[in-house]
Amino acid sequence: MADLEKHQRMANAIRFLAIDAVEKAKSGHPGLPMGAADIATVLFTEFLKFDPTAPHWCDRDRFVLSAGHGSMLLYSVLYLLGYEDFSLDELKNFRQIGARTAGHPEFGHGAGIETTTGPLGQGLGNAVGMAIAEKLQESRFGSDIVDHFTYVLAGDGCLMEGISQEALSLAGHLKLNKLIVIWDDNGISIDGRVDITDSTDQVARFAASNWNTISIDGHDPAAIASAIRQAQASDRPTLIAAKTTIGFGSPKKAGTNGVHGSPLGAEEAAATRTALNWPHEAFEIPSEILDAWRIAGLRSAQAHKDWQKRFSAKDADTRAEFERRNRGDLPAGFEAAVQEYKKQLAETKPKMATRKASEAVLGVLNEVIPETIGGSADLTGSNNTKTKQTASVTPDDFSGRYIHWGIREHGMAAAMNGMALHGGLVPYSGGFLIFSDYCRPSIRLAALMKQRVIHVMTHDSIGLGEDGPTHQPVEHYAALRAIPDLMFFRPADITETLECWQLALETKDAPSVLALTRQDLPALRTTYEEDNLCARGAYVLIDSEEDAAVSIFASGSEVELAVEAHGKLQEAGIAARVISVPCFELFETQSEDYQAAVIGNSPVKVAVEAGIRMGWDRFIGNNGLFVGMHGFGASGPYKKLYEHFGITADAVVAAAQAKLKA
Amino acid sequence: MADLEKHQRMANAIRFLAIDAVEKAKSGHPGLPMGAADIATVLFTEFLKFDPTAPHWCDRDRFVLSAGHGSMLLYSVLYLLGYEDFSLDELKNFRQIGARTAGHPEFGHGAGIETTTGPLGQGLGNAVGMAIAEKLQESRFGSDIVDHFTYVLAGDGCLMEGISQEALSLAGHLKLNKLIVIWDDNGISIDGRVDITDSTDQVARFAASNWNTISIDGHDPAAIASAIRQAQASDRPTLIAAKTTIGFGSPKKAGTNGVHGSPLGAEEAAATRTALNWPHEAFEIPSEILDAWRIAGLRSAQAHKDWQKRFSAKDADTRAEFERRNRGDLPAGFEAAVQEYKKQLAETKPKMATRKASEAVLGVLNEVIPETIGGSADLTGSNNTKTKQTASVTPDDFSGRYIHWGIREHGMAAAMNGMALHGGLVPYSGGFLIFSDYCRPSIRLAALMKQRVIHVMTHDSIGLGEDGPTHQPVEHYAALRAIPDLMFFRPADITETLECWQLALETKDAPSVLALTRQDLPALRTTYEEDNLCARGAYVLIDSEEDAAVSIFASGSEVELAVEAHGKLQEAGIAARVISVPCFELFETQSEDYQAAVIGNSPVKVAVEAGIRMGWDRFIGNNGLFVGMHGFGASGPYKKLYEHFGITADAVVAAAQAKLKA
Repeated sequence: MADLEKHQRMANAIRFLAIDAVEKAKSGHPGLPMGAADIATVLFTEFLKFDPTAPHWCDRDRFVLSAGHGSMLLYSVLYLLGYEDFSLDELKNFRQIGARTAGHPEFGHGAGIETTTGPLGQGLGNAVGMAIAEKLQESRFGSDIVDHFTYVLAGDGCLMEGISQEALSLAGHLKLNKLIVIWDDNGISIDGRVDITDSTDQVARFAASNWNTISIDGHDPAAIASAIRQAQASDRPTLIAAKTTIGFGSPKKAGTNGVHGSPLGAEEAAATRTALNWPHEAFEIPSEILDAWRIAGLRSAQAHKDWQKRFSAKDADTRAEFERRNRGDLPAGFEAAVQEYKKQLAETKPKMATRKASEAVLGVLNEVIPETIGGSADLTGSNNTKTKQTASVTPDDFSGRYIHWGIREHGMAAAMNGMALHGGLVPYSGGFLIFSDYCRPSIRLAALMKQRVIHVMTHDSIGLGEDGPTHQPVEHYAALRAIPDLMFFRPADITETLECWQLALETKDAPSVLALTRQDLPALRTTYEEDNLCARGAYVLIDSEEDAAVSIFASGSEVELAVEAHGKLQEAGIAARVISVPCFELFETQSEDYQAAVIGNSPVKVAVEAGIRMGWDRFIGNNGLFVGMHGFGASGPYKKLYEHFGITADAVVAAAQAKLKA
Repeated sequence: MADLEKHQRMANAIRFLAIDAVEKAKSGHPGLPMGAADIATVLFTEFLKFDPTAPHWCDRDRFVLSAGHGSMLLYSVLYLLGYEDFSLDELKNFRQIGARTAGHPEFGHGAGIETTTGPLGQGLGNAVGMAIAEKLQESRFGSDIVDHFTYVLAGDGCLMEGISQEALSLAGHLKLNKLIVIWDDNGISIDGRVDITDSTDQVARFAASNWNTISIDGHDPAAIASAIRQAQASDRPTLIAAKTTIGFGSPKKAGTNGVHGSPLGAEEAAATRTALNWPHEAFEIPSEILDAWRIAGLRSAQAHKDWQKRFSAKDADTRAEFERRNRGDLPAGFEAAVQEYKKQLAETKPKMATRKASEAVLGVLNEVIPETIGGSADLTGSNNTKTKQTASVTPDDFSGRYIHWGIREHGMAAAMNGMALHGGLVPYSGGFLIFSDYCRPSIRLAALMKQRVIHVMTHDSIGLGEDGPTHQPVEHYAALRAIPDLMFFRPADITETLECWQLALETKDAPSVLALTRQDLPALRTTYEEDNLCARGAYVLIDSEEDAAVSIFASGSEVELAVEAHGKLQEAGIAARVISVPCFELFETQSEDYQAAVIGNSPVKVAVEAGIRMGWDRFIGNNGLFVGMHGFGASGPYKKLYEHFGITADAVVAAAQAKLKA
């Protein structure tokens, strides 16, 4: 069998597994796997470094299918290479409940899937983060144990999404030379030819952001191999623009949008079998082809062994530290540092904005956790995310621990997901809470993938003042609490900020958002408690000796108002209690008894929060009182805004008294 | 006074008004107005077509300050030109509650502000929409009455945000030659020099997407004028890359990030006065400079008169139609068409997906409303937004009514805001509901600006099936209901779809999202009602003759389940009622009596929705029953998914019965 013929038959194995699985599921996207099969064959059988018997080997090359709808390409390749998680039965079970082979690749469904993709452009962003992580780890542990490429297969849709610009311009700036993006340039999107919506010269666009670029015929295996070799030697990230035919091989549908997202149909599938000379049953791979793939799957076994030798030669401390970080465990000194600082805070009781409190906390935690990587989307001085431990990363020096992400919230969040997926690092960001909207799709995916990424989001309410309603979060607490498996923290003072940071770091399987104030807040937690009270999600901050007539629930900066209102109610002879609610999600994980006890049975329940009411009925019922926002904010000094919108201790007291009298 | 000196003094008037206002407010961004004052002076005094005495003249040129933090540039210019809304007192009141001069320009605060900006990149997106609107209107009404430019002043941040790529690539593709973007290339962002985060050759980047590009010294008035003249003559959109010095004139802070977002301080303000030879008190503009500006403000008065003559020469029908569309009134035949179709539906009772229902409704409404402009972000066949009336717009022909937006949800939504702001058109989009996350910042701004943009968002739940959790909205109903002043509709059948479309179109001062199913739904509204029942937000679909033991609340596709559960409960001898809840926001506008009547007092209240619970406690209380999602979805055939997640009529019945027995 000549090399070219062998290549083509190996590529056809991908094509027909994809065709057959989509046909069987009566749903799916055959076009991309058929078009990009040649690329995948060359990449996986000649270049990609991996070990199917040890798929989590940390120095493997990463492959990201950014065009996630082409999932059958990935599943087919993983099966062909011998990844245990992707048996032929799994492929036959494509798009069925419980299968590893979901409609789009889902991280966690099986080893070999490096990230969850489907929402276009996200994979490209993840890959930038993976490539950053590689460079960071390489600079810490040496290129003898950290030396791998990150490959991306991206479609036209990925490149059209705005996030792609943030990702590629950052990658070009940081000279991520081990990032190689192969663009499946098939010229087709769902509505038809790409040229009905876009006239961009993508190669010129990437070149404008400091990329190495190569244009090839994506069906020519020699050209693909040559391009990858060139890319591997580049001192900059590389775009390989690979011209392909979507649905390659389908006599009637190749090169059209008809093959993008629907089964070929029995007749056209048969015609494609004839056209590509593939006289095999559905899901049948001739043994010599499967063998050729399986042999390719063993290609890096020796490289893996060599790596293990090099790793074993490291000193024990380095090995232990490297493994600890890759497991995602926190260092031994973490808990002690938290407790020591907490004791100190109980004594000093500092009054400060929670963004400043976060900076102070980070000053302590970054000292004991060397794997945190901070950053900000061009708001370093406002987000207070940079501490003395975190020197800036530059294109030529990745020994630092702080990334100036630029004005790229979406690219930042997607890259952080990639860093977390890569392993060995704990990324935390900086941004304004309002701009959680800009990176929401990536935050959602962090939650879906159960990744520990931590978003520090400051200027969390009308308390930011003069910048006005375009910058004032109002609905964002509700909108973020709505995302499943995301922890949204809104601490009320420095001690709660410390506790929330502790929770965010200790939770290995979920992302967190910390919403922090611009304005100063007093210390409300004034006695030392070893327990992390915020871990309960909500807790009684001020209890009442007698049955409380009024229970006041609040989060973040409004806990101060709740405490003030409590004092005024007590003065008026009304028994009241205050419940601090730093994290709705954690409250839901508490026992029913605890929940009932915290909610209590005061005749009057009031919630105070400088956001909308949505979500608070959980605590106060739909006949409870709410003191908060009922629409957008306004531009003005923040104290006046709180007055203007009636979010004051007096308003809480007045509302409670009126209800008690009613 | 020589021309150059005059120019410089006029530009300094902007600089010092900005310096003084920021100084007085003790808050704000002086750097951009100081740096871009030369550009603004040339643009507004020599090129921009406008009439301060008729600021809403529909054929005025549009100016968009995409770098909205430089708001004092705009307010200063509007004051200097004689716009009534921007008096000197308003400038002195910068960033105070109730002032027209908010921290960022806010649409509606005063004539002369064309759009709300601040979240970076949005203005650029709006401007693309305005330029599209101009071409659409020109092709309908002729260039004698529609012939204006759209100018943008954008900063580094605007160009770094991903939305800029979507906006510029679309503009280049559509050859929006009357769009002129001036990039305030000052090389500084908040964290420092732009080159610490970006290495993009922006001129090359724009050129790669079919833009005309010109590079100039942004402090040279002759170069600025020459560039604008060249741009006006281009057959493509133009980027003018204007090198400027941020904080121009400040001896100590010019060219640094220290002048971006903080007052200069009294000392440096004084030093700047000396350096720029501006020996005037705060807010004092020498009369000859103010006169020069005011004279410039009259520049287009004759052009406006000429336009009026040309407009008057049009036939009465054309004038009336043009004015109707610009007022945003719907045509006379609208209501009749709705009623006629509603009658027909009551007879035919078609079973279909609500996305198909929307297509059918649009087939009727697009016939009577010629100003609707449809589109889709590359999902035309899935969103069903194209009807026989809507031919595609192409770069060379804007007579069509359908825009293939490409895979650019964010750019689409921002451009639609610009189209609505421009006036004369009613834009509606197409996308998947999951991707509301991709364009959420623009949807929020539509709400803040009270603009009628309508988002058709299909595939609205796990009912989309095999594409899986990356594509299945779960938290999106709550997250969109959370945005103030946005109407989120989730119709249950074709009649509700018609009613929701009617409401979206009739509501001139708010955006709408229509969440529509992929899967078929039966007709649930089977008798003709002239009233729009969806206008109540929630209404009793099936009442109970006796006191209902169970009330079932549902929206969209789950109303079918509620009706089925109702039948089963009746069979079991349990009196029940069904409430359809197509729009939370409209329900909140009803009388308390109506709300109480709809909610009722059944001992058991159940909500059924294929999303999370958040928001439903408003109807069912915090001890109500909820049948819905508790986390992310999964990949599989949709009927199996509904079973898998326990969202079935039987689950509703079982939960209700269990609670009744408890």
